[in-house]
Amino acid sequence: MSDRQRYDLAALRARLDGIRLEDNPALVRQKSRDFYWYSPILKRQLDPAVADIVAHPTSQDEVIRILSACAALAIPVTPRGAGTGNYGQAMPLAGGVVLDLSGMNHVLDIGPGHVVAQAGAILAEIDAATRKAVGRELRLHPSTYRTASIGGFIAGGSGGVGSIMWGGLRDLGNILGLTVVTMEAAPRVLRLTGEEVGKVAHAYGTNGIITEVTMPLAPAHDWVEAIIGFDDFAEACAYANALGEQDALVKKLVSVVAAPVPQRYFLRHKPFLPEGKHVVLVMVDALAIDAFAAFTARHGGEALFRSDLVPAARQAGLPPLYELAWNHTTLRALRVDPAVTYLQTLYPFPHQLDLVARIHARLGTEVPAHLEFVRFDGKITCFGLPLVHFTGEERLDEIIAIHEEMGAVVFNPHRYTLEEGGMKQTDAVQLAFKREADPAGLLNPGKMIGWENPEFDLASGRTYLFQGLG
Amino acid sequence: MSDRQRYDLAALRARLDGIRLEDNPALVRQKSRDFYWYSPILKRQLDPAVADIVAHPTSQDEVIRILSACAALAIPVTPRGAGTGNYGQAMPLAGGVVLDLSGMNHVLDIGPGHVVAQAGAILAEIDAATRKAVGRELRLHPSTYRTASIGGFIAGGSGGVGSIMWGGLRDLGNILGLTVVTMEAAPRVLRLTGEEVGKVAHAYGTNGIITEVTMPLAPAHDWVEAIIGFDDFAEACAYANALGEQDALVKKLVSVVAAPVPQRYFLRHKPFLPEGKHVVLVMVDALAIDAFAAFTARHGGEALFRSDLVPAARQAGLPPLYELAWNHTTLRALRVDPAVTYLQTLYPFPHQLDLVARIHARLGTEVPAHLEFVRFDGKITCFGLPLVHFTGEERLDEIIAIHEEMGAVVFNPHRYTLEEGGMKQTDAVQLAFKREADPAGLLNPGKMIGWENPEFDLASGRTYLFQGLG
Repeated sequence: MSDRQRYDLAALRARLDGIRLEDNPALVRQKSRDFYWYSPILKRQLDPAVADIVAHPTSQDEVIRILSACAALAIPVTPRGAGTGNYGQAMPLAGGVVLDLSGMNHVLDIGPGHVVAQAGAILAEIDAATRKAVGRELRLHPSTYRTASIGGFIAGGSGGVGSIMWGGLRDLGNILGLTVVTMEAAPRVLRLTGEEVGKVAHAYGTNGIITEVTMPLAPAHDWVEAIIGFDDFAEACAYANALGEQDALVKKLVSVVAAPVPQRYFLRHKPFLPEGKHVVLVMVDALAIDAFAAFTARHGGEALFRSDLVPAARQAGLPPLYELAWNHTTLRALRVDPAVTYLQTLYPFPHQLDLVARIHARLGTEVPAHLEFVRFDGKITCFGLPLVHFTGEERLDEIIAIHEEMGAVVFNPHRYTLEEGGMKQTDAVQLAFKREADPAGLLNPGKMIGWENPEFDLASGRTYLFQGLG
Repeated sequence: MSDRQRYDLAALRARLDGIRLEDNPALVRQKSRDFYWYSPILKRQLDPAVADIVAHPTSQDEVIRILSACAALAIPVTPRGAGTGNYGQAMPLAGGVVLDLSGMNHVLDIGPGHVVAQAGAILAEIDAATRKAVGRELRLHPSTYRTASIGGFIAGGSGGVGSIMWGGLRDLGNILGLTVVTMEAAPRVLRLTGEEVGKVAHAYGTNGIITEVTMPLAPAHDWVEAIIGFDDFAEACAYANALGEQDALVKKLVSVVAAPVPQRYFLRHKPFLPEGKHVVLVMVDALAIDAFAAFTARHGGEALFRSDLVPAARQAGLPPLYELAWNHTTLRALRVDPAVTYLQTLYPFPHQLDLVARIHARLGTEVPAHLEFVRFDGKITCFGLPLVHFTGEERLDEIIAIHEEMGAVVFNPHRYTLEEGGMKQTDAVQLAFKREADPAGLLNPGKMIGWENPEFDLASGRTYLFQGLG
């Protein structure tokens, strides 16, 4: 970022007359950041990243004008929703333009089973509209539901609250359609459905700008929030897994958080969290509450909190339960203890409970367990977002290696590239689509290794460092 | 049934003044039958069963009066919904009263997520009401959807269309509440929820009369009917299993029917069924049709029929797809070939595909495969309702033994008792509840071995024969 004048911003401004642009350094810096600081490693690596200017389109036509101008002037463009991602997805590693899509936040159409929204629409606001119109809501959302945008979730997320019923965003059917604008002098507007959705979903905006999304809706149940306590960690895990396998109990969240994490970090829920209890966080359909209670009794679970039973006055000021779960668990820990960080793991079916128990036995003090149960390829299993008491990058790498040796899959949240944070290989379909849709490689530079440096050996264990950065 | 005057019917009539009673022998005989004749064995055994009189209550108060009178007079009562069961559930083995609940067919209350209905309400009519009111429908129904009653389904069914999403009726949460009248001189009205539902669900009305039900609702999707063809049976099965495991594709039916069953028996669909094709019958959410087509293409499936693509004129006269599936497959075969019967099997996860292939390889000509994929304890697996070219009871027993030896679970549809058709043991909770709710053993006599003859050895392999019969 040393040469702030490497792009012809004057020419850009001239071409974008009438579109709101922002170059106040403090504001540009702010819009060049996401929640990358959950990772001490990304924090160190990405701190220098900053855009030259922020563009605020309010329509797809303005997006087209911006992309056309940037393509003509060879200025990189990094799209941004609400900036709630954790992997530097929205951070402009080569400067240039941050394309802030938060002004494109309209819900365009609602049917009984689907919603069409602009990419910048906030998840909770979409749900407010669909609940009112048709009594339904989005199937999936991250714990940043109240602030995150739907386009950002699709471009940079994978699943979350709701995945216990619906699997992940990667599953066919969880994204019905996407409208994408290409990065060309004459940008094309493409409508992707079916298999084609995979070209740009979870591609960090490296190969097209998502402007509109069509998402399926699920019934908007009256969700009861329950915290179920267990003295024994393995029993908490077995209960959560079995609850996930209850096909007739509609859930939206089944999370396990090992003691003492809840007691130490869930500050506002503390009166409900006796010392030593491992907890399972559950959102369950109020209609099935008797069935849920019967199931919980079979497993010997103790209801520490139930939103349908605790008086409203005692619930005042409590965050919603999903804001104790997924990556909000990490956020709450970070607020109390800035030396905490986290991992992202998958414990593959069918040995998930055994693997969780073995890893927790070996590392539980340094890496306290936090599990999110999900449907994954038709089975119930769990992801982990364990907390890590961070003592250095070398030890973090050791902890990751131990997880992998023992059989867990690690999606490393301390990497900013698609490949290193994901399946350790370039998505060939996404790379091919980038060749079509962003032939000059101007979209979100540095995030797709397969484009930037096809020779890079992903199996080497080395961390990829984008040359344009820093 | 030799002594038709063993009960004091005159006294009964006197007590039930104002309630419609029927003793026309032809009509009584008709109301003493269900679809037991799918089984040549039940047909032989149960043909003599006939009630003395049929009572037609139109309210719970009338049910209470009838049960009170029958308890006082020691007259057996066998409840009946629409008589669409296949195991003689509704057949009065000891004569007495058939309690025809079809006049209690009102939908009482509809909420966004639930419906309350009288036991005799027809499934399709409940759905018509809930679709109109809240855009939702029952989660589960048998293939006799258009004629069967909700009370009969709960008392004598186990699952069916919808089980690919919701599991079975036995799963906690698929029945929210039941109102039950006991068989006592002063009948009690009990409201069962949560764990207590299991006391009377699938008990054939042996331990209480279900008068009202509260059921959860699922979204009423616009269902596309698809028939997907494969040249290879194993590929059809693998596709169906994998489709079941697609967590984000909302399905209502995933059935596999091996050639030449579809071509031979699905007469009205014949133009869509090329010779030799093994077929997968699918009901899938229209909103996800692109995703479904993409998934089907991945598996090399050929769409032989899709209700959203075939012109309406060509679909005239076709039955709904679910009337090719579950036990309607058997019914269609019986209409063409009266020498056909069937079995009911479960191929336990995780070896279901291998087991299906091995059994089909060994018996496929004599016992052509018909699979219904379901969620079962949180995993996708399949039930079988294979057709059997019936050549005698001894050979049928051999075929059952072969299935069990090879690892399949057989729910024998050629038995009229709860135990022999089910898990080969008495449900202790249901037996205990019968002691409370029917202390004189007057409800549906002969169906619960654990009550009739606690000494009977269920492991002996002998068929239980109710002494009161024939």
